[in-house]
Amino acid sequence: MFIVKGNIVFTKESCELTIFENGYIGVEEGLVSFVSKRLPKEHESSSVIDYGEKIIIPGFCDLHAHAPQFENIGLGMNMKLLPWLDTLTFPTEAKYKDADYAKKMYSRVVKDLYRFGTTRATLFASVHVEAAQILVDLMEEAGLGGCVGKVNMDMNCPDYLCEDTETSLKETREFVKRNQNNSLVDPILTPRFVPSCSERMMAGLGEIAREFDAPIQSHINENLDEIKWVGELYPKSKNYADVYDGFGLLNGNTLMAHCIHMKEEETELFVERGVYAVHCPQSNCNISSGKMPLKNLLRKGMKAGLGSDISGGHAVSIPKTMVLAMQISKLRFQENPEEGFLTLSEAMYLATKGGGSFFGKVGSFEKGYEFDALVIDDSSLAVRDDLTLEERLGRFIYTGDDRNIVERYVRGRKLEKPPFE
Amino acid sequence: MFIVKGNIVFTKESCELTIFENGYIGVEEGLVSFVSKRLPKEHESSSVIDYGEKIIIPGFCDLHAHAPQFENIGLGMNMKLLPWLDTLTFPTEAKYKDADYAKKMYSRVVKDLYRFGTTRATLFASVHVEAAQILVDLMEEAGLGGCVGKVNMDMNCPDYLCEDTETSLKETREFVKRNQNNSLVDPILTPRFVPSCSERMMAGLGEIAREFDAPIQSHINENLDEIKWVGELYPKSKNYADVYDGFGLLNGNTLMAHCIHMKEEETELFVERGVYAVHCPQSNCNISSGKMPLKNLLRKGMKAGLGSDISGGHAVSIPKTMVLAMQISKLRFQENPEEGFLTLSEAMYLATKGGGSFFGKVGSFEKGYEFDALVIDDSSLAVRDDLTLEERLGRFIYTGDDRNIVERYVRGRKLEKPPFE
Repeated sequence: MFIVKGNIVFTKESCELTIFENGYIGVEEGLVSFVSKRLPKEHESSSVIDYGEKIIIPGFCDLHAHAPQFENIGLGMNMKLLPWLDTLTFPTEAKYKDADYAKKMYSRVVKDLYRFGTTRATLFASVHVEAAQILVDLMEEAGLGGCVGKVNMDMNCPDYLCEDTETSLKETREFVKRNQNNSLVDPILTPRFVPSCSERMMAGLGEIAREFDAPIQSHINENLDEIKWVGELYPKSKNYADVYDGFGLLNGNTLMAHCIHMKEEETELFVERGVYAVHCPQSNCNISSGKMPLKNLLRKGMKAGLGSDISGGHAVSIPKTMVLAMQISKLRFQENPEEGFLTLSEAMYLATKGGGSFFGKVGSFEKGYEFDALVIDDSSLAVRDDLTLEERLGRFIYTGDDRNIVERYVRGRKLEKPPFE
Repeated sequence: MFIVKGNIVFTKESCELTIFENGYIGVEEGLVSFVSKRLPKEHESSSVIDYGEKIIIPGFCDLHAHAPQFENIGLGMNMKLLPWLDTLTFPTEAKYKDADYAKKMYSRVVKDLYRFGTTRATLFASVHVEAAQILVDLMEEAGLGGCVGKVNMDMNCPDYLCEDTETSLKETREFVKRNQNNSLVDPILTPRFVPSCSERMMAGLGEIAREFDAPIQSHINENLDEIKWVGELYPKSKNYADVYDGFGLLNGNTLMAHCIHMKEEETELFVERGVYAVHCPQSNCNISSGKMPLKNLLRKGMKAGLGSDISGGHAVSIPKTMVLAMQISKLRFQENPEEGFLTLSEAMYLATKGGGSFFGKVGSFEKGYEFDALVIDDSSLAVRDDLTLEERLGRFIYTGDDRNIVERYVRGRKLEKPPFE
């Protein structure tokens, strides 16, 4: 049991920030036992970690990133989706067949997540199960939480990455089984997207999902050409979402990245199934995918979170992703004022409690939530000293960076810098 | 005379990067005397400053920022334009009546420009001429170049900022006269925008422009409500641009920020007059102004550069502005493929030679150009070591920050960190 003191800011609801100025959070066995303005009487003799004027916020959740592509961050941004995949992404992913290479590079991925305050992340690995296991182990060792998926891909991809369907399913099943009882990092089923998986692959993944109640992640409705392609591959399906649904891959444990060009009935299906839409504004801009109708999806009851989508996205930082999400929503707002725009508290909610709910009670400081937290020293940003805590949070989100994050907690454990080279 | 050696990257033309790997730049009296792959014979005995594997690029040009608003960076981003002006911006600008306050805060502005590698900037000050002069002097002292304008505003603004027209014109004329022979920082005429200047004010500024051949900066076509308002104020004018033109304020020395909602004939007028369109993507998103048709304007022959538009924009960094300019152009491209999108070299051109041309021969390493340069140490970004220089530049622009800028030159002078508190 320990208590932290500081300027506490989080989002119980998306519509407003919950603030305890110079407040206290009690943590017992990794969970928040209280959050309050005053130190409760029964804890008056407890020791308190006093963060002074610093801000304490929930850790950030990244619901979509490709771990082998971290080495390509900021590269190939003049290319469109298909040449980008063929000349940059696929050749890079092929390198993760080599376990030593994977260990070296995935160590950097984990250090990057730590550095930018991403305390939970759902990651696509590559098709290589050994490398995926290395990534799981490194995340656990560093004390970061989330999900890692071995990618499945048995068609419409280069020979050097194309899997034998049954081998892929067998490896995936073993990967899921082996990692069922991990502490912080769960296995997640990861069909790359409809065009790269055969019907047998999708059906087999649906079976594994049911057998292990395993979470699922994939892509949907990112690009108009992709949607047309899926329509050609599955002429009998009602739409893109219907293909996933037909294989039992849409439920409350499913993350679907992008959701830009959603048909009305796809949105309804997602809401009914409880699927999470993962908004990845950096890549949506960088590879010309379009402006996701985030506010519309939220209004219809869609669950949602944010993704960095490294390396279609170029920023590991979830605050940078929040800012672009607000900016894109304001461009939509300019064109469609009735939509409204994403506010700071709404963006904060998506990055913490909204996305965090995928991992359980994560992303808030309400009682019973896992204590994932960042301590923010914004003194280097301080030009004015007459700001409210909401303004200080906004200034950090818009203009701060990794230098302002001075402490990180996951499930009550204070993290050290990952000890990898 | 001195020579620098390193990996030289600049943009002679916007369509491609000009690269000299391990090349040399000779600098004589502040100007580039040669740039080449090999050290010319006649200079073999000259001493060379060897930057090794580092990248040498032209300094960044910021063509639109509000100096008194630097203290508000990252604040008020949930507000729309008018409440943002009334509750945040105008009360802040009023503080610059106090010269001591202005000196303290403008010192930080100059330090920020230095830190982010902005070697030339055109800045709006406030209406206070004493504060504007302080800003000029601080910029000169720090060795940074550009233009500073005392803002003119005699209507449609709070009483506490509203100027007497004749006093404003007199102060402006004296400010221009006093700063005619500065080394690096020129005075610039700065009517805030049409709605805040009376006809007499605009006419008077047009006279000063002609008398001193003074540059001019203002705003145009940022917001649909603003455009409607201008139409109501000047029912006889053909359009917004025509109002400025009628007072003699549009010429090859004019910067016009935003240019989002341009009528065809306004674009033609700007091209004819040689006016610069200043693209400010951060603020265009943050305050829901819209997506500037940058590629269309460029194709029609418009001169253009980039602006941070602090504090409607929240990033002092011109690389961050370049990235968002590319991203917004790709959203337009998704909707209008015939427009194409802004490439890395085009964005780099806007940020250096394109914008730099406003200041003379600035923003390139071609012979005769003023030697404004940044030395980039991208070793902290290096995950892969098999990259081309173009890829290394892209990675720095997309993912680097002030930590990667290790040296700054303006007109051949190596800058020290500004010595202000």
